[in-house]
Amino acid sequence: MLSFTCDYTQGAHPKILERLIETNMEQLPGYGNDRYCESAKEKIKKACECPDAEIYFLAGGTQTNATVIDSVLQKYEGVISAQTGHINVHEAGAVEYTGHKVLTLPAREGKIRADELEELLKTFWEDGSHEHMVFPGMVYLSHPTEYGTLYTKAELEAISSVCRCYKIPLYLDGARLGYGLMSLRTDVTLPMIADLCDIFYIGGTKVGALCGEALIFSHKNAPRHFLTLIKQHGALMAKGRLVGIQFDTLFTDDLYFRISRHAIEMAELMKKGFAEKGYSFFLESPTNQQFILLDNGKLKELQNKVAFEVWEHPDEEHTVVRFATSWGTTSEEIEELMGYL
Amino acid sequence: MLSFTCDYTQGAHPKILERLIETNMEQLPGYGNDRYCESAKEKIKKACECPDAEIYFLAGGTQTNATVIDSVLQKYEGVISAQTGHINVHEAGAVEYTGHKVLTLPAREGKIRADELEELLKTFWEDGSHEHMVFPGMVYLSHPTEYGTLYTKAELEAISSVCRCYKIPLYLDGARLGYGLMSLRTDVTLPMIADLCDIFYIGGTKVGALCGEALIFSHKNAPRHFLTLIKQHGALMAKGRLVGIQFDTLFTDDLYFRISRHAIEMAELMKKGFAEKGYSFFLESPTNQQFILLDNGKLKELQNKVAFEVWEHPDEEHTVVRFATSWGTTSEEIEELMGYL
Amino acid sequence: MLSFTCDYTQGAHPKILERLIETNMEQLPGYGNDRYCESAKEKIKKACECPDAEIYFLAGGTQTNATVIDSVLQKYEGVISAQTGHINVHEAGAVEYTGHKVLTLPAREGKIRADELEELLKTFWEDGSHEHMVFPGMVYLSHPTEYGTLYTKAELEAISSVCRCYKIPLYLDGARLGYGLMSLRTDVTLPMIADLCDIFYIGGTKVGALCGEALIFSHKNAPRHFLTLIKQHGALMAKGRLVGIQFDTLFTDDLYFRISRHAIEMAELMKKGFAEKGYSFFLESPTNQQFILLDNGKLKELQNKVAFEVWEHPDEEHTVVRFATSWGTTSEEIEELMGYL
Amino acid sequence: MLSFTCDYTQGAHPKILERLIETNMEQLPGYGNDRYCESAKEKIKKACECPDAEIYFLAGGTQTNATVIDSVLQKYEGVISAQTGHINVHEAGAVEYTGHKVLTLPAREGKIRADELEELLKTFWEDGSHEHMVFPGMVYLSHPTEYGTLYTKAELEAISSVCRCYKIPLYLDGARLGYGLMSLRTDVTLPMIADLCDIFYIGGTKVGALCGEALIFSHKNAPRHFLTLIKQHGALMAKGRLVGIQFDTLFTDDLYFRISRHAIEMAELMKKGFAEKGYSFFLESPTNQQFILLDNGKLKELQNKVAFEVWEHPDEEHTVVRFATSWGTTSEEIEELMGYL
Repeated sequence: MLSFTCDYTQGAHPKILERLIETNMEQLPGYGNDRYCESAKEKIKKACECPDAEIYFLAGGTQTNATVIDSVLQKYEGVISAQTGHINVHEAGAVEYTGHKVLTLPAREGKIRADELEELLKTFWEDGSHEHMVFPGMVYLSHPTEYGTLYTKAELEAISSVCRCYKIPLYLDGARLGYGLMSLRTDVTLPMIADLCDIFYIGGTKVGALCGEALIFSHKNAPRHFLTLIKQHGALMAKGRLVGIQFDTLFTDDLYFRISRHAIEMAELMKKGFAEKGYSFFLESPTNQQFILLDNGKLKELQNKVAFEVWEHPDEEHTVVRFATSWGTTSEEIEELMGYL
Repeated sequence: MLSFTCDYTQGAHPKILERLIETNMEQLPGYGNDRYCESAKEKIKKACECPDAEIYFLAGGTQTNATVIDSVLQKYEGVISAQTGHINVHEAGAVEYTGHKVLTLPAREGKIRADELEELLKTFWEDGSHEHMVFPGMVYLSHPTEYGTLYTKAELEAISSVCRCYKIPLYLDGARLGYGLMSLRTDVTLPMIADLCDIFYIGGTKVGALCGEALIFSHKNAPRHFLTLIKQHGALMAKGRLVGIQFDTLFTDDLYFRISRHAIEMAELMKKGFAEKGYSFFLESPTNQQFILLDNGKLKELQNKVAFEVWEHPDEEHTVVRFATSWGTTSEEIEELMGYL
Repeated sequence: MLSFTCDYTQGAHPKILERLIETNMEQLPGYGNDRYCESAKEKIKKACECPDAEIYFLAGGTQTNATVIDSVLQKYEGVISAQTGHINVHEAGAVEYTGHKVLTLPAREGKIRADELEELLKTFWEDGSHEHMVFPGMVYLSHPTEYGTLYTKAELEAISSVCRCYKIPLYLDGARLGYGLMSLRTDVTLPMIADLCDIFYIGGTKVGALCGEALIFSHKNAPRHFLTLIKQHGALMAKGRLVGIQFDTLFTDDLYFRISRHAIEMAELMKKGFAEKGYSFFLESPTNQQFILLDNGKLKELQNKVAFEVWEHPDEEHTVVRFATSWGTTSEEIEELMGYL
Repeated sequence: MLSFTCDYTQGAHPKILERLIETNMEQLPGYGNDRYCESAKEKIKKACECPDAEIYFLAGGTQTNATVIDSVLQKYEGVISAQTGHINVHEAGAVEYTGHKVLTLPAREGKIRADELEELLKTFWEDGSHEHMVFPGMVYLSHPTEYGTLYTKAELEAISSVCRCYKIPLYLDGARLGYGLMSLRTDVTLPMIADLCDIFYIGGTKVGALCGEALIFSHKNAPRHFLTLIKQHGALMAKGRLVGIQFDTLFTDDLYFRISRHAIEMAELMKKGFAEKGYSFFLESPTNQQFILLDNGKLKELQNKVAFEVWEHPDEEHTVVRFATSWGTTSEEIEELMGYL
């Protein structure tokens, strides 16, 4: 059945598989010390315009989040996230499992606001009993958010400025970063993220790779002995080449950006189609995830023809559903979908 | 200076010190295996009308909360608490430190509501992606709450019933339990708590002891090898007698209840005084903590004469403050306070 | 340079890459719920002669060990391992990071002995103070061990019997299991392991896969909500297909066994060569890892011509080194090595 | 029955109880911010000849060990201890529970040796694969050890020097420190310990207090926000006065030293008696714990008359037992014991 359930239903971009085959029988050192990891890092540094970046490759998003957050935080600190942040809702408590609290801010269409962040930090430090509380030690953003929304440059700057004022790092979860950077409605670039954030990852799993995320410390701020910490968290791949080769391919000839742009184009087509057919959007998303508000009758009907994800139930009679495009979505698939609406 | 900052500013009820002296040179086994712990347990079982209760003595509240919650929860589970619950705000992340998330419900004057609890549980189990989420594995209440409020019998029954329906234990933090039980406006008794909850503790530190909490599993539900788990959490006292003798004394001749009632009488006097002088109450508290809304001018003025705790700032010009009575408060102190209002 | 440093220096068996390409554009559900994971599980169950086995796919060995050990142990329990066990030495404390102690037994050429295991368990349970100690809750074996050695059927039976007597599970780390099963000097089969152990994993990373281990609970003993626990440990792959397809391929037409046997044949050739040239073996290894004792002069000389791993220093003048073959080693490489000896 | 089972069978030195009564009704701040804690700290600094010492009061030994070790270690580090160290054997895995491995050295009558420590550190740093291993991040000693033995000044200096060379802190568990300092056969003083160690605690629970240990960072090396870390570990006492008053009393007029000396005198009497009656000592202990080797016939006979602790079984026919004196032991009790031998 036609499916728009998510952006990781298919394997890898064919170019990646090609490179895996070409390099397959080379004998390479393990644990990320191979030449492809090295080459991928150089290309990513260039794309980020950040020659001093320290880069590590991990296998997946939850693993990356838990490893980074635990490694960077002091033991008395927690991480600030939107209430709807992935780490707060859909990672099975992986952050708390490492011993750290997720401190929440209200989610404004999936985003946090700089003024509310500042208020939280100000209140914490003014509170006479803060020694009995979890110290806010880091800010976590997802960009795009879990609702497909994007921070503007001005919003990122404001949040970054609050973080620097309070001397805590800003960490950006870029599981779908490509789709954010290639949105038609964004003024945020990769070098800007490298500049405004202290730590971020460029997602591979959801943007054309079999697995893998590129984790970047952009201000010479990688934790000491971070490789050992990755190992301790069970996140060090023996065949580091697997992720290295994939990112080396994704960052050759702008492949990462080109396939992300393709997904955005498909999403725009889909969005236009939904709008023309009179569907309501749950919110305005400028990326590859589109959230549609359906009455439950329509929901049942559509579920027979096409696969998508049920998101939430705003009331008894309506359901919010998600349609996601990816690097692999074709315009034929969008057309087929339009036929069902 | 006259002080109403909290209910643990003084040592222990004199009767307790007397008993410590009388028993001091007896050679007793360590780790809670002495005759005074045994005797205290028997008296507590009787007071709870719960002959099968399994009882452990720990030194303090945060320690008890973290040890119980971690020991009872499965590794994939978190604990549900009011947003304002002590474990969620003022224990420096001790629960998360054990690897478990605190799942929050809105605080309604410090309390959670059975219907909102049921909704959370229902939504969790209906959610298709709940395997990626923290399982709700226990409900935490404080009674009295951090705002001095009390659950009614009907409220406790409703919450208990939801817990049993979803097969998760109900845990009640009774750091100030005596003051709740002896309130003039409660229909909740100790045997009722033992019946409706699965785990609870009777607070000693804030009710006349030097230290110590009596932790009760009232339905033959103590975790296996719980003594080892207490030891692992650094919470096993070598001289268990210290807490045993204190609780044995507190539960002899109703001392625990008598001194709690005294604190309530003092609080009622104080409350009446505040009301007569035209002060506004932040909320209606039937226990030993009274929350008063002051304008900041009055705040400054009062702070020069009497010690109390600043609680929160509802707006720029007002402050909520807390006045607490205890087993040690005298009517002379209340009168002196009234003179300052 | 010619290299025998380890068994994970190359990519994947070409047949695996072929299958990844063939299945690449299929839209499949995530998190291991796809048809290839399903098919792989069926084939593994058959190879294990264990129709009730519960099987999970994880990405790497340390991750698998930490996730299994933490999920299976009670909070008051630790895991018993040989002093030289991988979990005790080379996983950066990943087990302790989950909160559990590794309890050690002497390593007898990398193996533990049933009688010494029994003695440890007997002593623990007899000890009056065992409530203050870590409970032995699981036995960890590696097979082949870190020294290439193998348990005999009789040894496995004896250890399994002790575990059952004391009602603790037996867990076998099979990172290199193929090379053990295909050794010319073993009487242990895969169904035997499934029968005598309670939990084990069939290693992919070191036996021809890009990544991935197949974790098997062979006695209907998978922990409740194990998928959530995998997620919590950051070990759940979004594109579960990546490991599923690899194991489906490895367990089609006995590929896993055939490539393991090839590595063994290469190791036997190499071993014969070393022996004929008069080299001393540090110990007798019947698998793909061979440990040679070199004087330091010879060490230097050889290091200029061929890559291998330095293992340990038994005295000032000698060094133990490791030569490993793999599914990818060719007889030409062995011949070239022989030329250098 | 006459008992020498341990040094914490009785309450507190009467002078302590007296002070608790005298100060009982004073209203004091909580959490260690009271004047008695302040005064106790000053007296301890003076006794340590260490005016810059940072001092914290905790309730018990296991709690102190786990809190300190976890707070001081980096996440990738473990703590080095003798195989027989309390943290390695009798704390139910409290250190591993905090996520850190205990790295063991052979126990030489309960002690570690500087040369073996240096070898461990040297080997670790030389090992090419140390990034996959637990970093040695701290050295733990007990003094007196679990076997009653003492480090000499020269031994402490050598160990301290190795620690400084490798830039890791030296932590001394002084649960029974008084008995060590007052031994007739020691050249180690309290100021020496403050100088040579970086962190240590002066035990109260086993030396005349109801509970409590005084933890000292002697080189301005207390972890940042240590109070919050204590709270997070469930180790912060609300009524900090309870421990503060006890240590203030113990360090007034040398009470701590005088009662420790008394226990030593009683132990020397007992030791002389055992020797005269021809009993064998398991090892030579210069402190309040004496370890006697009994044949099992004699063991049974003695157990009918006097209580002591069974320690270990060197062979089938013999048992090592422990007799402990304390601040509360009387010469009449020693005489009675002698009558039974």
